[in-house]
Amino acid sequence: MPGALVVLSGGMDSAVCLASEASTLDRKAPLLALTFDYGQRHRVEIERAHALAEHYRAEHIIVALDRAPFAGSALTDLSLDVPAASSQSTRSVPVAPRIPSTYVPARNTIFLAIAIGVAESRDLDSVTIGVNAIDYSGYPDCRPEFIEAFREVARLGQRRGVEGSPVQVKAPLLLLDKAAIVRLGASLSVPFEMTWSCYRGGPDPCGSCDACELRRRGFAAAGIEDPAIRDRRLSEP
Amino acid sequence: MPGALVVLSGGMDSAVCLASEASTLDRKAPLLALTFDYGQRHRVEIERAHALAEHYRAEHIIVALDRAPFAGSALTDLSLDVPAASSQSTRSVPVAPRIPSTYVPARNTIFLAIAIGVAESRDLDSVTIGVNAIDYSGYPDCRPEFIEAFREVARLGQRRGVEGSPVQVKAPLLLLDKAAIVRLGASLSVPFEMTWSCYRGGPDPCGSCDACELRRRGFAAAGIEDPAIRDRRLSEP
Repeated sequence: MPGALVVLSGGMDSAVCLASEASTLDRKAPLLALTFDYGQRHRVEIERAHALAEHYRAEHIIVALDRAPFAGSALTDLSLDVPAASSQSTRSVPVAPRIPSTYVPARNTIFLAIAIGVAESRDLDSVTIGVNAIDYSGYPDCRPEFIEAFREVARLGQRRGVEGSPVQVKAPLLLLDKAAIVRLGASLSVPFEMTWSCYRGGPDPCGSCDACELRRRGFAAAGIEDPAIRDRRLSEP
Repeated sequence: MPGALVVLSGGMDSAVCLASEASTLDRKAPLLALTFDYGQRHRVEIERAHALAEHYRAEHIIVALDRAPFAGSALTDLSLDVPAASSQSTRSVPVAPRIPSTYVPARNTIFLAIAIGVAESRDLDSVTIGVNAIDYSGYPDCRPEFIEAFREVARLGQRRGVEGSPVQVKAPLLLLDKAAIVRLGASLSVPFEMTWSCYRGGPDPCGSCDACELRRRGFAAAGIEDPAIRDRRLSEP
């Protein structure tokens, strides 16, 4: 029975990926949600990831990554400011994106490397990651050519690949714009109010960083109200 | 000034890589040795790695990898036996190697992913790994095609790659046989007595596992006495 692993950040994109896998997988097949704790500012993401995993009855694994040897990203280095929104929205995939200070060196390479290792050791057939190259922040490791290169690594570097059934690396959101991701999530009944997008640490989304701005525009373009905003509005006096 | 990172296990191959980088690098350039603690049986390797890093005046970083989500390798799962020697020695690179139970899913993919991340965050130009596809244990992630695929990942997934100067992934021992590695190390005055090869945990090398057998044959073919064996012989009553 084919099992699946989903890299789950607690953001809306990875929540849609988890919903998609949960909807197609046999009910008895193993579903694993893998969350990385890399000292990110937005730690509320990890709590949201756990709640989402429970919602989809996925086994939730949190892998702690030692960030001591790393330096220089605004997402993990608390001495750097998170910049205000300046994301790139494009219909074509940019060849040489402008890379913001929130870039974390080799983040998706590290996430995928550990994900395919965990998947193989647990005999799961696929790894799904919610990267997106259309409405995105300009990270090089969110582009189709990166995902394609990583598939080769999985095919050539693992026992399963040598044996002819490599761990599949799936990136179903790669070429969707944010509005399409919102619509896909809505069609799968994703509890968007449980997801967290903001790069800053809360308690409420800041509304001004790249991630907040992408989310706002995505819901607006899809013509759907963001339930996280609705819930906040309803809870206000 | 170009700096370098070497993935250092404490075994003889990575020690030769470290010696090689130390010999070519400017004396003032940063040299970083990166060791992974992934719950391996042969923990004495980590102590040897530290001594080697000190010997070469490299900054030594030990990255702890969470092994909880992994299962099923004889090198980390203490309930499995380490098999006796059956390594593959070949002049050509095998297309479909027989993979032993000591295989660790995605190990070199994970090591290299973290290594290129650390290298980029510290502005180091290269990552060197001592993989070898000739006298080796049959791991798929020791083959030239795997290294080539990973280079593409580094080129496409990192800021440095997008900017035209990707972190170089170097595998100088890839096509050397063990005797050639021994001779290269001897020419660089590698303190082989400080290195540890055995897959079992000591206190002395078992002499019967894959790694011990490869090491014994390498020194024999090079016509050089293994100083680790010599030291043990001299210390016996």
